[in-house]
Amino acid sequence: MGEELQRWILMVTARAPTNIAVIKYWGKRDEKLILPINDSISFTLDPDHLSATTTVAVSPSFTSDRMWLNGKEVSLGGERYQNCLREIRSRGNDVVDEKNGIVIRKEDWQRLHLHIASYNNFPTAAGLASSAAGFACLVYSLAKLMDVKEKYQGELTAIARRGSGSACRSLYGGVVKWQMGKETDGSDSIAVQLATEKHWEELVILVAVVSSRQKETSSTTGMSQSVETSELLRHRSQEVVPKRVLQMEEAIANRDFGSFAKITCADSNQFHAVCLDTSPPIFYMNDTSHRIINCVERWNRSEGTPQVAYTFDAGPNAVMYAPNRKVAGLLLQRLLFYFPPDSSKTFSSYVIGDTSILEEIGVNSMKDVESLTAPPELKSESSSSTFPGGIDYFICTRPGKGPILFRNEDQALLNPKTGFPL
Amino acid sequence: MGEELQRWILMVTARAPTNIAVIKYWGKRDEKLILPINDSISFTLDPDHLSATTTVAVSPSFTSDRMWLNGKEVSLGGERYQNCLREIRSRGNDVVDEKNGIVIRKEDWQRLHLHIASYNNFPTAAGLASSAAGFACLVYSLAKLMDVKEKYQGELTAIARRGSGSACRSLYGGVVKWQMGKETDGSDSIAVQLATEKHWEELVILVAVVSSRQKETSSTTGMSQSVETSELLRHRSQEVVPKRVLQMEEAIANRDFGSFAKITCADSNQFHAVCLDTSPPIFYMNDTSHRIINCVERWNRSEGTPQVAYTFDAGPNAVMYAPNRKVAGLLLQRLLFYFPPDSSKTFSSYVIGDTSILEEIGVNSMKDVESLTAPPELKSESSSSTFPGGIDYFICTRPGKGPILFRNEDQALLNPKTGFPL
Repeated sequence: MGEELQRWILMVTARAPTNIAVIKYWGKRDEKLILPINDSISFTLDPDHLSATTTVAVSPSFTSDRMWLNGKEVSLGGERYQNCLREIRSRGNDVVDEKNGIVIRKEDWQRLHLHIASYNNFPTAAGLASSAAGFACLVYSLAKLMDVKEKYQGELTAIARRGSGSACRSLYGGVVKWQMGKETDGSDSIAVQLATEKHWEELVILVAVVSSRQKETSSTTGMSQSVETSELLRHRSQEVVPKRVLQMEEAIANRDFGSFAKITCADSNQFHAVCLDTSPPIFYMNDTSHRIINCVERWNRSEGTPQVAYTFDAGPNAVMYAPNRKVAGLLLQRLLFYFPPDSSKTFSSYVIGDTSILEEIGVNSMKDVESLTAPPELKSESSSSTFPGGIDYFICTRPGKGPILFRNEDQALLNPKTGFPL
Repeated sequence: MGEELQRWILMVTARAPTNIAVIKYWGKRDEKLILPINDSISFTLDPDHLSATTTVAVSPSFTSDRMWLNGKEVSLGGERYQNCLREIRSRGNDVVDEKNGIVIRKEDWQRLHLHIASYNNFPTAAGLASSAAGFACLVYSLAKLMDVKEKYQGELTAIARRGSGSACRSLYGGVVKWQMGKETDGSDSIAVQLATEKHWEELVILVAVVSSRQKETSSTTGMSQSVETSELLRHRSQEVVPKRVLQMEEAIANRDFGSFAKITCADSNQFHAVCLDTSPPIFYMNDTSHRIINCVERWNRSEGTPQVAYTFDAGPNAVMYAPNRKVAGLLLQRLLFYFPPDSSKTFSSYVIGDTSILEEIGVNSMKDVESLTAPPELKSESSSSTFPGGIDYFICTRPGKGPILFRNEDQALLNPKTGFPL
């Protein structure tokens, strides 16, 4: 490549979804390769509401690998980024775009520098698996840029796994299983799709972003401490999870909401139980999280069958699954009754995402929220406390599809002329 | 007995302590006989600060068994009371007081009625094992009244166990182990004293009574649900606790505070982990409980060795163990800094029990509390939040002795002439 002529920039932009596990990943058997101690299963969330968008660019004019996350430059020096970049680069192929005078030989990927810009369409700080979407999007977009072809199904998920374990599950839509694998090199620790987003499309997923004063233990630190100190974790990973994974696969295959809900709640609670059994103990759920669980459990009990499932990741936020829009509406009515917005909030910022369910239940303003009454299952109880301000906001979403490539350059986060953030 | 002459009343008054487990009892293998699924170990608390006082009276003039708890009549119809009364009555002996013209043959105990009055010197609602002290005191005082002689060591503890499992541990002072036993009739499920209250008398025990809006699951209901639904509980009771009991006995025998603290905290956390693993999940600890744990863990970590141990029963209250008065003072300083009383409290009602430690740390007024500064281990943290009103009050106490009989009639809770509450 004659340097003077090579002022070209080649760019790819992609979007990848986040995912929420219903059988939890907690504990690594290999910290470096990020190999888990049990299988996990997740739902991919609709990328319209929760996703990362990433533009990756390559140019002979770039002098180093650089990355901007939500507009701010971040270091690529960390082992996780380095592992992803190295693994992807080593699999790059020849890319030729004669029209634009671009000729990249596969060996060039090792020396050409990259510019990466990534953006989450939801608050990074909210603890909603932003790193899963981010690393999935990074690996997916780089693979497109470098024309990487999987030698075996799931090879890319194994690379995304090196960035963030749960990122491997964000490379597919619908329902995804991360198989723990057996190999010491991690090549079989990959994600596989169990069902597409069409399989159970009536499901409604409601995220409650919970207000928190607590500084949380990172999941990396937390799970490593659990592996080291929890006497219950090994029992969970070896005895409990293998059975639950089979039951969960069956429940999902049959769209058996009752079984799905029971296993989902039990597995979330057991994950948090293991956190408590860790030394020092880790608390991700707070009083608001507990109140959300009590609200759902009371309702489920009063109906005799599970109406709604809940699951909590490494933070206080609740993710709830309802079998259809009608039940999701009843859930929202309950949650808005118990957790009205505090006075600083506007109605339109309190429930976001697919807000059409609000219309269906006739809640269109703060005044409608205020006039909600206690749900029937509370009638017998003496107190009907509400907790204004306990929840920051709700996101209404659904199972979603996997990563997509944007053909349209409008979506790019880097200037196609300069290769720097727009 | 000629009825006209038999207007006598025979009365006994006793006091029994409460106890706090450091290896937790959670789960029964026999609900009716109250037989546990694992051994447990507790410290008996100083009865000057936390105890039940009970007067039991017998008279041919009484027409039915009656009981008053904290001045209010309560039903004796429950199975637990009935089991204790039946077991004790069947072991009654001849009691003769010729001076007062009282002659009771052992067979008379079956038909003579009892009046019972009991009083806790601490709030019953505070969730501080009031039933343990209460049933221990009932059984102990009735045994004295009826001159019951144990056929084997611990026979009385097996009877108290029928009232409330943990009550069996309140029949001795110091450190007590409840052996789960093997027999199906429960005769070997008894408490034994591991050490007297003199063995480790430098220990200071600080109870933080935590404010709570939550209605709690009773421990009876909770443990039965855990046995039924928690996949982790069996592993705990069969694999974890047997080893911990041995380690705890050794730590206590050697007054090895570091090991004692490690096991105590781990076992409390594991008990609450099992509660979380129950379906529906049970939350006894709240945000304040978590903050107390974080305060202790941060301090312990910064010192490199455990300064203080914490344990939580079936409620949000913390019970903390300090190795001596000096460390207890440092603990109180920290807790008073993080959890100052809310404005409705008076200083003298905020720390009760043995308040001499307050004097030693120079905290003698609300103003002294206000001028407490953040502990050194917090200096590096960005926030030093305090939580006024999170704690209702503190009780400062120590390991204490077992039940005692009051020789002095002044302590009686029943009128010696009428047999009714004073």
